[in-house]
Amino acid sequence: MTRIAIYDTTLRDGSQGEGVNFSLQDKLLITTQLDLLGVDYIEGGYPLSNPKDAAYFRAVRDLDLKHARVTAFGMTRRKDVAAEDDIGMKALVGVAMPAVTIVGKSWDFQVLEVLGVSLAENLSMITDSVAFCAAHTPEVVYDAEHFFDGYKKNPEYALRTLQAAADAGAAWLVLCDTNGGSLPDEVSKAVADVVANIKVPVGIHTHNDCELAVANTLAAVAQGARQVQGTINGIGERCGNVDLCSVVANLSLKLKGYEVLLPGSLVHLTEVSRYVHETANMNFRPGQPFVGTSAFAHKGGMHVHGIRKNAASYEHIDPALVGNERRVLVSELSGKSNIAEKLAEYGLEQDSALLTKVLDRVQDLENEGYQFEAAEASFVLLVERLAGRETSWFSSLGYHVSVSGRPDGAAVTEATVKLKAGDAIEHTVSEGDGPVNALDGALRKALEHHYPRLMEMRLFDYKVRVINGREGTAARVRVVIESQDDDSVWGTVGVSENVIEASWLALIDAFDHKLTKDARSSRSRVALAQT
Amino acid sequence: MTRIAIYDTTLRDGSQGEGVNFSLQDKLLITTQLDLLGVDYIEGGYPLSNPKDAAYFRAVRDLDLKHARVTAFGMTRRKDVAAEDDIGMKALVGVAMPAVTIVGKSWDFQVLEVLGVSLAENLSMITDSVAFCAAHTPEVVYDAEHFFDGYKKNPEYALRTLQAAADAGAAWLVLCDTNGGSLPDEVSKAVADVVANIKVPVGIHTHNDCELAVANTLAAVAQGARQVQGTINGIGERCGNVDLCSVVANLSLKLKGYEVLLPGSLVHLTEVSRYVHETANMNFRPGQPFVGTSAFAHKGGMHVHGIRKNAASYEHIDPALVGNERRVLVSELSGKSNIAEKLAEYGLEQDSALLTKVLDRVQDLENEGYQFEAAEASFVLLVERLAGRETSWFSSLGYHVSVSGRPDGAAVTEATVKLKAGDAIEHTVSEGDGPVNALDGALRKALEHHYPRLMEMRLFDYKVRVINGREGTAARVRVVIESQDDDSVWGTVGVSENVIEASWLALIDAFDHKLTKDARSSRSRVALAQT
Repeated sequence: MTRIAIYDTTLRDGSQGEGVNFSLQDKLLITTQLDLLGVDYIEGGYPLSNPKDAAYFRAVRDLDLKHARVTAFGMTRRKDVAAEDDIGMKALVGVAMPAVTIVGKSWDFQVLEVLGVSLAENLSMITDSVAFCAAHTPEVVYDAEHFFDGYKKNPEYALRTLQAAADAGAAWLVLCDTNGGSLPDEVSKAVADVVANIKVPVGIHTHNDCELAVANTLAAVAQGARQVQGTINGIGERCGNVDLCSVVANLSLKLKGYEVLLPGSLVHLTEVSRYVHETANMNFRPGQPFVGTSAFAHKGGMHVHGIRKNAASYEHIDPALVGNERRVLVSELSGKSNIAEKLAEYGLEQDSALLTKVLDRVQDLENEGYQFEAAEASFVLLVERLAGRETSWFSSLGYHVSVSGRPDGAAVTEATVKLKAGDAIEHTVSEGDGPVNALDGALRKALEHHYPRLMEMRLFDYKVRVINGREGTAARVRVVIESQDDDSVWGTVGVSENVIEASWLALIDAFDHKLTKDARSSRSRVALAQT
Repeated sequence: MTRIAIYDTTLRDGSQGEGVNFSLQDKLLITTQLDLLGVDYIEGGYPLSNPKDAAYFRAVRDLDLKHARVTAFGMTRRKDVAAEDDIGMKALVGVAMPAVTIVGKSWDFQVLEVLGVSLAENLSMITDSVAFCAAHTPEVVYDAEHFFDGYKKNPEYALRTLQAAADAGAAWLVLCDTNGGSLPDEVSKAVADVVANIKVPVGIHTHNDCELAVANTLAAVAQGARQVQGTINGIGERCGNVDLCSVVANLSLKLKGYEVLLPGSLVHLTEVSRYVHETANMNFRPGQPFVGTSAFAHKGGMHVHGIRKNAASYEHIDPALVGNERRVLVSELSGKSNIAEKLAEYGLEQDSALLTKVLDRVQDLENEGYQFEAAEASFVLLVERLAGRETSWFSSLGYHVSVSGRPDGAAVTEATVKLKAGDAIEHTVSEGDGPVNALDGALRKALEHHYPRLMEMRLFDYKVRVINGREGTAARVRVVIESQDDDSVWGTVGVSENVIEASWLALIDAFDHKLTKDARSSRSRVALAQT
């Protein structure tokens, strides 16, 4: 088995992605997750670039990391300054991490045009910087910025920059496709040339501007690269860095003879991916390979039919290998097999008349803007209502929400709810941080003494999507609420022209589902007891 | 130049993606866009699968398409039924399109396990179906489902299924990596073998389950494939089909010797990509290669510095070639060069004291959950306030929003606004479809007679994002509102624990920006007149 070192730069290069903002706390939490996943290097940040990164390197010392080495990132020394006098160099070794990463220029055009120094001075900047860091830090990783562009234009000079870093004591030479414009054949050729001519281990750092980052990384590994740099979920500048989730899964599951991460850690891949999305406050990318929520989701009726006969018919790997799971979706394309599948999942009986009724209703609601893919609980309630279920836990008689805003930014929100629970009429009022929170409070006041288990549930996410009306049609709003209790998480949906009404619809479904599922599980417990 | 035919299946395979729902109207609008882009084939749908697709084939006849051929998709005949008696076959030829596409099985395992017919019967099903369609339709495209999986397990049989389709009159043999599990080397080898042995043009159809769909497509083209099937934005089942935007851009701009689409149509790529996102009601994927809103966005200070000296330093192509544009982002990572760049863009003077003040303020607000990347107007207002600008168009004295919901789902929304414009105190009220709409109405009543040009502006998008508070911290909500008038579009942002307050903050910024930019442009017109 050939060991491929995984070098994560989510916290540094990743944080240059649009919409990515990590707090200091975020960075420390992600560091711990990456260590559990078994990555070999964690590039923590750029000591000089901002105070947050400086604070990170102080705080990270207190984390008890099992395996990963944290590296500090910086540039070669400035021109006409000795390395030991350069503030960047001093900051790099000052943080006293087990490794430092220095980026230098390999493209003659960049040296002359952007840096504005001679080709010779650039070589000394590389030599001095690597030598200085090597003297003060156990391991120096040298990132060759724009290596592939440089190699295309002036291979002789590009190779000399690598040789300079190697001679000065770099432990790794990482070839960077900084602009993401290279193609797999170009990468193969260049990596093969470097591996053949320079006797220091080589790494690969790609960006996804041509949607070829993963292919370029695998091409480099095939030619002898032994370190892969990337980010979790492929976040990063422009189109992002290569997604380590895809790289790691391909190297472990699709190719033969490579060893990455730690034994048994691959099953945490999906969890770590979602953790980083959440912590970075980014939306999941449902179609993300291997770890996305849709990566093993089946919608087309034909596919669902196939999956039921044999999973391999429409899945290239077992989702469990990366900690992901199969999902069967409900939509107008589903055909009855998906819906039957769902009903079975929830132990609902499935006569074909009901299936047809459900399918028709789903199609109508989707035309109104509903989507049940993220709101299965609302779908199940819909089915039970169409099946003519007996229990109604409560029925709404109306609500009122009022928000008063003051110039100082303080806003007071009050909600009243009127409903019928059993024979009792409840009319309650609550304040809240916002309308949904206040409605939630009033609903609880009205229902919790009837149904105490509602105290176990809480709302933890709220999504609003405007369904752009075309010219002449009013815009509608779809609200999806995610709720959880001790043993499950469920999504409910509401659609209306009014965001408050849509929220209300999703909210009462959330309560209804909690009560219904508890009743269902206690029924099944009774049934079990009787057998 | 080698012509590569572009076959779009956004409307069929794409619509199997999670969260994708096209109305009949959507499908017709997208068809027109695809035709303008110059794709060669548009797979419109599956006549048998649902009524919407059937209606599409009736309506599409009335579109006056310039170049694209619309194809109808279906499966081979069922077992033990003559092609002419099979409802699927009849539906396919019944829609009378210039081409039909038939999918058949090439993987012995699928034939025996999923279809449950003999290997010989599967060959006759392919032969009969292709022959029947070829007799009634000008052009038959044969999609070989699971071809690469079949070829790995039983190449001899997989090739026989292709030969059967070729002998029966198929114009194209499209090799499908249905499960998206193949690697570029496997694809190259199989395509080369088919091209060498079967004398009918070959196409490639890939999925992105290993994040290698683009690489696999380019590998197939390099081995002689002459048709590429994919979807706009890579929408589709699971991880999606190959993204035609990336394929087309790579074939046109990164590789040599290929001709795709129509002359001059590449500059419409970004527009068509965003049109499909909008029409499908999907969020843009900012990091989408070539066409994404972040594809040429620069955030890291070093990159912005480089770009200003020479664009090639951090861009692999000129964004204009695909109709996209460069953007410089503002964030805590920006460093002053990004902010200076922005100020210059808006003709604001930029002393370094102000730059520091702005940078500090931006960092504080980002910690509170603000993001200015999609809300430049709010950023510019922030700068002007920090610069101590003179004009204040209006100052809020408070607002009140009230929503009354009834069990029948009808909700009545009323908003009152109190503000000071000049020396006048305005106190107005308006109803609306929802809170934002009602607040917008009340603001207009209060301000339009002071500033009539407000009548030119309208709100056209509204986004809400919950910024998940960690344990113990209250969740905050970020609202981004996009507004437009006759000559521009602008985004504004508000953050609060209360969705109504956050909306209000974004709303007053939207109005403030409209008034400020109009004043600025009239000032510059005056200045111009005086020179």
